[in-house]
Amino acid sequence: MQIKYLAKIFVTLRTSVLDPAGVAVQSGLKQTGYDNVEQVRIGKYIELTITAPDEMKARRDLNQICDQMLSNPVIENYRFDLIEVESQTGVF
Amino acid sequence: MQIKYLAKIFVTLRTSVLDPAGVAVQSGLKQTGYDNVEQVRIGKYIELTITAPDEMKARRDLNQICDQMLSNPVIENYRFDLIEVESQTGVF
Repeated sequence: MQIKYLAKIFVTLRTSVLDPAGVAVQSGLKQTGYDNVEQVRIGKYIELTITAPDEMKARRDLNQICDQMLSNPVIENYRFDLIEVESQTGVF
Repeated sequence: MQIKYLAKIFVTLRTSVLDPAGVAVQSGLKQTGYDNVEQVRIGKYIELTITAPDEMKARRDLNQICDQMLSNPVIENYRFDLIEVESQTGVF
């Protein structure tokens, strides 16, 4: 059996790393009157579907995918939520 | 009284809009053996703190900020979660 999961992946800068884009957005907001906004941090949000026989395999693949392709482990953290969307029984 | 909220903002491409970066990631994953991944969509995830007298004002400001600065309403949708992190009573 193969199960299809929807993965919602968050890639964020480590707190020790400066975020120039976030600083620029905050500065722009301040200039347009939003001086009540602080600590802007900009990251990535990725959605994908992944098919695997079980959740453990899906999580293992996703950890490798995030480490190798979706994040830069030197400066970024990631986390993801998995939602089962479909089960398929068939001949594989 | 002023309340500080943490906003978690998701900016995603509208489903009708092609995502070339997502297609490139999916193609790269396939070439490295992950042919079980599909429908990759890459968006932005933004965290910020906003101070406001109540949640309604915070949400109104955030809607304007997202419309004007954080998203392109022609091709992107946004949504956000608000979490109260701190209440301050003081002289303003």
